[in-house]
Amino acid sequence: MCGIFGIYSPTKNNIVKKVYYGLYALQHRGQEGAGIAVGNGKNIGSYKGVGLVPEVFTNKELQNLYGHIGIGHVRYSTTGGNNIDNCQPFVVNSSFGNFAISHNGDIVNSALLREELEKNGHIFISTTDSEVIAQLLVRELLKTDDIVQAMKNVSEKLNGAYSMLIVYNDMMIAVRDPKGFKPLCMGMKNGEIYFSSESCALDIVDVPLERDIKAGEMIVVKGNKVKSYDLPNKAEKSSTCMFEYVYFARPDSTIDGISVHEVRRNIGKILAKENNTDADVVSPVPDSGILFSQGYTEEVGIPYKEVLIKNRYIGRTFILPTQEERDLAVRLKLNPVKDMIKDKKIILIDDSIVRGTTSKKIVTMVKKTGAKEIHFKIGSPKIVSPCFYGIDMATKDELIASSRTDEEIAESINADSIQYLSIKGLIEAIGREDLCLACLNGEYPTDVSCKLCNNNKKIKNK
Amino acid sequence: MCGIFGIYSPTKNNIVKKVYYGLYALQHRGQEGAGIAVGNGKNIGSYKGVGLVPEVFTNKELQNLYGHIGIGHVRYSTTGGNNIDNCQPFVVNSSFGNFAISHNGDIVNSALLREELEKNGHIFISTTDSEVIAQLLVRELLKTDDIVQAMKNVSEKLNGAYSMLIVYNDMMIAVRDPKGFKPLCMGMKNGEIYFSSESCALDIVDVPLERDIKAGEMIVVKGNKVKSYDLPNKAEKSSTCMFEYVYFARPDSTIDGISVHEVRRNIGKILAKENNTDADVVSPVPDSGILFSQGYTEEVGIPYKEVLIKNRYIGRTFILPTQEERDLAVRLKLNPVKDMIKDKKIILIDDSIVRGTTSKKIVTMVKKTGAKEIHFKIGSPKIVSPCFYGIDMATKDELIASSRTDEEIAESINADSIQYLSIKGLIEAIGREDLCLACLNGEYPTDVSCKLCNNNKKIKNK
Amino acid sequence: MCGIFGIYSPTKNNIVKKVYYGLYALQHRGQEGAGIAVGNGKNIGSYKGVGLVPEVFTNKELQNLYGHIGIGHVRYSTTGGNNIDNCQPFVVNSSFGNFAISHNGDIVNSALLREELEKNGHIFISTTDSEVIAQLLVRELLKTDDIVQAMKNVSEKLNGAYSMLIVYNDMMIAVRDPKGFKPLCMGMKNGEIYFSSESCALDIVDVPLERDIKAGEMIVVKGNKVKSYDLPNKAEKSSTCMFEYVYFARPDSTIDGISVHEVRRNIGKILAKENNTDADVVSPVPDSGILFSQGYTEEVGIPYKEVLIKNRYIGRTFILPTQEERDLAVRLKLNPVKDMIKDKKIILIDDSIVRGTTSKKIVTMVKKTGAKEIHFKIGSPKIVSPCFYGIDMATKDELIASSRTDEEIAESINADSIQYLSIKGLIEAIGREDLCLACLNGEYPTDVSCKLCNNNKKIKNK
Amino acid sequence: MCGIFGIYSPTKNNIVKKVYYGLYALQHRGQEGAGIAVGNGKNIGSYKGVGLVPEVFTNKELQNLYGHIGIGHVRYSTTGGNNIDNCQPFVVNSSFGNFAISHNGDIVNSALLREELEKNGHIFISTTDSEVIAQLLVRELLKTDDIVQAMKNVSEKLNGAYSMLIVYNDMMIAVRDPKGFKPLCMGMKNGEIYFSSESCALDIVDVPLERDIKAGEMIVVKGNKVKSYDLPNKAEKSSTCMFEYVYFARPDSTIDGISVHEVRRNIGKILAKENNTDADVVSPVPDSGILFSQGYTEEVGIPYKEVLIKNRYIGRTFILPTQEERDLAVRLKLNPVKDMIKDKKIILIDDSIVRGTTSKKIVTMVKKTGAKEIHFKIGSPKIVSPCFYGIDMATKDELIASSRTDEEIAESINADSIQYLSIKGLIEAIGREDLCLACLNGEYPTDVSCKLCNNNKKIKNK
Repeated sequence: MCGIFGIYSPTKNNIVKKVYYGLYALQHRGQEGAGIAVGNGKNIGSYKGVGLVPEVFTNKELQNLYGHIGIGHVRYSTTGGNNIDNCQPFVVNSSFGNFAISHNGDIVNSALLREELEKNGHIFISTTDSEVIAQLLVRELLKTDDIVQAMKNVSEKLNGAYSMLIVYNDMMIAVRDPKGFKPLCMGMKNGEIYFSSESCALDIVDVPLERDIKAGEMIVVKGNKVKSYDLPNKAEKSSTCMFEYVYFARPDSTIDGISVHEVRRNIGKILAKENNTDADVVSPVPDSGILFSQGYTEEVGIPYKEVLIKNRYIGRTFILPTQEERDLAVRLKLNPVKDMIKDKKIILIDDSIVRGTTSKKIVTMVKKTGAKEIHFKIGSPKIVSPCFYGIDMATKDELIASSRTDEEIAESINADSIQYLSIKGLIEAIGREDLCLACLNGEYPTDVSCKLCNNNKKIKNK
Repeated sequence: MCGIFGIYSPTKNNIVKKVYYGLYALQHRGQEGAGIAVGNGKNIGSYKGVGLVPEVFTNKELQNLYGHIGIGHVRYSTTGGNNIDNCQPFVVNSSFGNFAISHNGDIVNSALLREELEKNGHIFISTTDSEVIAQLLVRELLKTDDIVQAMKNVSEKLNGAYSMLIVYNDMMIAVRDPKGFKPLCMGMKNGEIYFSSESCALDIVDVPLERDIKAGEMIVVKGNKVKSYDLPNKAEKSSTCMFEYVYFARPDSTIDGISVHEVRRNIGKILAKENNTDADVVSPVPDSGILFSQGYTEEVGIPYKEVLIKNRYIGRTFILPTQEERDLAVRLKLNPVKDMIKDKKIILIDDSIVRGTTSKKIVTMVKKTGAKEIHFKIGSPKIVSPCFYGIDMATKDELIASSRTDEEIAESINADSIQYLSIKGLIEAIGREDLCLACLNGEYPTDVSCKLCNNNKKIKNK
Repeated sequence: MCGIFGIYSPTKNNIVKKVYYGLYALQHRGQEGAGIAVGNGKNIGSYKGVGLVPEVFTNKELQNLYGHIGIGHVRYSTTGGNNIDNCQPFVVNSSFGNFAISHNGDIVNSALLREELEKNGHIFISTTDSEVIAQLLVRELLKTDDIVQAMKNVSEKLNGAYSMLIVYNDMMIAVRDPKGFKPLCMGMKNGEIYFSSESCALDIVDVPLERDIKAGEMIVVKGNKVKSYDLPNKAEKSSTCMFEYVYFARPDSTIDGISVHEVRRNIGKILAKENNTDADVVSPVPDSGILFSQGYTEEVGIPYKEVLIKNRYIGRTFILPTQEERDLAVRLKLNPVKDMIKDKKIILIDDSIVRGTTSKKIVTMVKKTGAKEIHFKIGSPKIVSPCFYGIDMATKDELIASSRTDEEIAESINADSIQYLSIKGLIEAIGREDLCLACLNGEYPTDVSCKLCNNNKKIKNK
Repeated sequence: MCGIFGIYSPTKNNIVKKVYYGLYALQHRGQEGAGIAVGNGKNIGSYKGVGLVPEVFTNKELQNLYGHIGIGHVRYSTTGGNNIDNCQPFVVNSSFGNFAISHNGDIVNSALLREELEKNGHIFISTTDSEVIAQLLVRELLKTDDIVQAMKNVSEKLNGAYSMLIVYNDMMIAVRDPKGFKPLCMGMKNGEIYFSSESCALDIVDVPLERDIKAGEMIVVKGNKVKSYDLPNKAEKSSTCMFEYVYFARPDSTIDGISVHEVRRNIGKILAKENNTDADVVSPVPDSGILFSQGYTEEVGIPYKEVLIKNRYIGRTFILPTQEERDLAVRLKLNPVKDMIKDKKIILIDDSIVRGTTSKKIVTMVKKTGAKEIHFKIGSPKIVSPCFYGIDMATKDELIASSRTDEEIAESINADSIQYLSIKGLIEAIGREDLCLACLNGEYPTDVSCKLCNNNKKIKNK
């Protein structure tokens, strides 16, 4: 995951506060860290920190930033830990002036690129792909002073997912990788150009969505000019991450022209069509199962009720229970409502199952509360292969669905039955075929041979 | 509002961590401050602070508390400001040993009682009702060493709402005022006695609800004994706050045997029955309108959709927008989804209208997004009189409904129509008549003459 | 210890910042906590916290305080711990309006007074003597509305040391106990009246010292009037704490007309006269031995050198060394300079010895560095009895001098000889006889029988 | 300034806590930031932050660091501001493994080196010389895997002052530049090797000083071996900074075999010999004038008294007075004692005068307190040229002595006379001639032509 947001104001308005609002609207894409870098055409100021957007930025930090070309970043939690050095934007001082990079996605060959750069005497102070991209860009800028050509050369070396925003001198550059794995869209208002991971952040600053950046497209904004270029390795067919529709994106976003909440309701309806289950109530696992469940209910008429109440105040600062208190942990987040559950046949809908441990806890808790039957339904197909493009899933061995039948999965999570959405149903629900389904069918859109040898190692990502 | 929680362990288990979990589950009742006081039969240790439960308490603070008789408190935001001195429990050092008091509710005559005590040489270091109750209790304990009699004497002096928990030497005392304004319930497990403002907090620590404390009841726990006493001024009929069912309580709680979420669905159904409105979609103002809307949909069949998406990360630390950015403020919290709204007739359901300013902003924003018609429906009757029992509403003049017709209200908030639940409908939805409806009909269950003279002054409360 | 400072501005200037500066200059009297209370004649605002003055007060806290009658307090570290409830000023809400009290000194009979008040139904939220005084004052104000008479009545009940400042409605009241144990002085400038524990704080705000408050004097400032009253129990002879001159006060203060630094130089000279010791160098244990050593050198001509270098950055936040690192601890604070010490006969001068543990560490360290002889000299007589008037010393048994000869003490701290100042020499150095010498000769100026029974219990104080 | 400290334990003891103590003892060399990097032969962990050593490091941070090869750094305040990116040690990830660098001193040609590296595609994330050195080192390591040769090659490129410590794989490397501008010494105990900017830090961890690192010497520690190498550009004559003796170093240090406190006493004596001034009292401006004053007194017999009392609690967090309170500012730090000053002829001794603004405030304040005459004496010669080797002085134009006679300076600071130490006297006092006197006579030991063109720009340094 991760979210990026940027603004270019040709009339040189200070855009820092709006970048902050944009990041606020993208907070769901990353709660680990946040940063803003803003330039005035010459210098770039920046601030970043560990935590939520409002934890990192108070008025004090915002007042110290000033400029008309700015980008921001929210960082997703990774196994690498809360290191401020790994927060973005990555800001660079070089003989070509300062520049700043924010990106979303994983570069599959970043370890190889890093190794190659180090052999040439480059040093790294972070473990981010952003720094790799920055060093590559500097190297290309040594060969040509044409930033467009330099970025094209860099993109030819990159294998993987990267939606990114760059402040470079008096320009802003937006790039979406040749496969368009991750979303990136553009808004315009009063001559100002906005870029955002999701359209919901444009809504929040009241800017109309202009269009999505195309897969393999680079946009360069300078003064009043907005120019579009094709990356040299633009693919014939996109491979946009299907999980953006299913889980990651906010329901009020549209991605590549398709409404996220519509997709989720469709998924619920198709789930209902693909398997006729007798039940007294349809309930989501909140929050991610809500729209699936509403679509499901609409299709079959079984009443929709939220049998699990979420504690809205559970935050990251929660004190973890000791060993003996561990049974309380799920309950602290989700409380089953006895009078809706007792003696009822319940359809429970969630977005996905990765390892199955959380699902088991939830189903077991609802069972203990008195449910007669629990039919667990999943708004996505079985995950059978790891993702190398930016989602921290698990290794193949850890994926509960990689080697088990539906019956075995149902049994292992204590449910009376389990139903996954079919891949065909997913494509129908989204309404497009140019999707990355690698985690569902093992067909990776780019060469991941350098990763597959590490099959059982946990992959870091962002 | 405010929430209270307490545990008595006859086998002298350290119950601090469980009190912490209980407060977590009651966080919705107060986000301003939190505190825990815990005794071992002799001494009482305590810690309190400003902020959310996990902000006030980290492992460090919890490890410094130890004991088997403990109470906690979450404090609701009041006009009095974030003063740590006003946080509870209020802990007292006196010649009768230490004691600690947590309470929920407003004492109508506290200013008079305070004045009287001051005339007798008592001094106050906070502006809380808890301190008034503490001083009264000490005065009574001077006259009698029977704590039950002392508490009875105190309760005869108190006019108003008070559900309260007291640690006193090796006892825990729970009291619910004679009218039972505020909820208070009791759980039991493995010989331990639990008290909580709401049953959801018992669920969270996996303790079965034993029963609600009755209006005018005092319970004293000491060792293995749990004794119940009647307060001398026990009323014939309760007057429980109807807003607990409509808005305050968590939907997974039951109050006085009635399920809160059932009440809210009923309200939606009755709203639908009381007024037949043609529309394309029924949508809540999240989160409080969700259950009303689902009940409404169930009754009339108009599709349920959430046309406003809430940003779950908006917290108290949010930087307030400057004057010119103020239009963004509502949008940052609630984003209208254009493709669900455009050209649609929308029924929008919220829990109540106080001044009408927020409702106006929301309705206007949805209108601007392209709604054809907006029919605003309210899950409670018109609020026409201020509350003196613990809810910070407004003065009579500020209440939009106190002097306007439905048509005038609809116009002033930009809606095409407005519909309030009837008082009769409310009683039917809750299924009990012994409710406090003072803010709806001006009939106060206790003497509030000392307050009415201050009719236009803003009333502090908790 | 503890330090107090107050300002009354008849022309209603905001005096908060100057109170802050005054506390800064009194920081040496207490580093545990600080507080300021300031009134405008009607209301009193206050802020206090744990830590040094600049840690407790930033611009934010100071800007929230406003008024023309203000007092402040710095709190000395006690065994009772860093509880914010024990910080001063103690601010009171009562039917007589708000008032605020800061005091310095220990009330010998406070436990008895507290017990008596509790029996009458008063409750206490702190363990400070200030709160006891506040409650007594309220009780007296019930009987008479003459604050002067009320304070007189209170003072008749108090046994012990109390220099105190009170903001009461539009008045400031300064009181020094009948024995004048603790210092308190007054300055005047541009019609404004200043009170301070020490004259150095008047210097810092550039205000001329008017005079010291007399033992048993009460001063009441109201508008342009400054009136002086005698307390009813004014003693014939003062008993001012001799340790104020020896150790506590800043050398740039004068107390009761006597210059502190002059006293300290005199002590050095008299020490030299009382015992002729052959040595190569005279060195202080910094910082408290510096002036004694300079006086000593002046008398005998042996060169003055600082053989121990103090690390100025050792603060309260220092991480305590583990068991095995404990030997480093003294060295981290004081580093012996080898080339000044090696093979030298050294006179080392410190202000006092309480238990002897620190002295032993220092002497041993200097010995190990190569000193030929170490003659340890003390700028005060032997401490043989505990103090009950405000100094946290130790019990009689813990006092190294209470039961040992000079030779035994020298041996126990590893020194070649030890020399204490004589009591006669001390009186000569200070130049006054009306001193409290209780800790030196066991003759307590007031009845301390209630304390002596607790002889071996550690006494709390401030 | 800046201070560095390092330890190598061949027996693989965890040396983190001792590095922390060492930094504590070097705190006077830098209060702006602190950091520690520690390796186990393979990986390097590090932590750094803005503030004093005990503010940056609590037990938590120290417990997260573990290893047997460690270096630390305290950073001096510079105009560049409190940026954590500029704190040291600078830790590098490269294909040669991780390494960490701490250094003290200024590289004169760092801007040129940086430019050259950037032209070759290197990017920089900080503005420190450490990063320049790191990048140069990586470049050389590409050419040779012999770290000794690589460091020699790097040193040939560096022009300026650099005492530095490097952790590199399982080695520690200590380097002192060819001119030996900044001190660096070595201690040994139980087979462990210690390096420190000053010997006082060895005392603090109770480690005997082995010897000073020679100018132009590189020491490599690996396992039990300690090897010494000559840098290729080792100078025939050192140029050690004379201000280390006069002001920077702690008096309990020895530098290149010369005791700092001895030098300071000598300075006082020579000052007295060079100019016979009639006076009643000799007083330091505390703290830096104390040893000069004591030496002065010893020579002439005029009594030594401290007429200015320093407030030991003035810290960095002090709230700056507003415009109208500015006169209080000096007084808050230094209080003149009236009875020692009134009608006296005073010799006031300080270490140096840069711009003269502080001196003027102090002299004026003492004059106003009633001094009859003030003779201001300086323990160093006139500063007439800026320093490019690590001291943040001022531009030539700002230096009060660069263009004024003694009489003009005395007049401008309100003194009756002024006396500087002669250069000859300084050399005599220190007892060595191989000193850098560039700021006193404009003769720079290395080529500073690249700096002199920027004559009037403020120079950043560390």
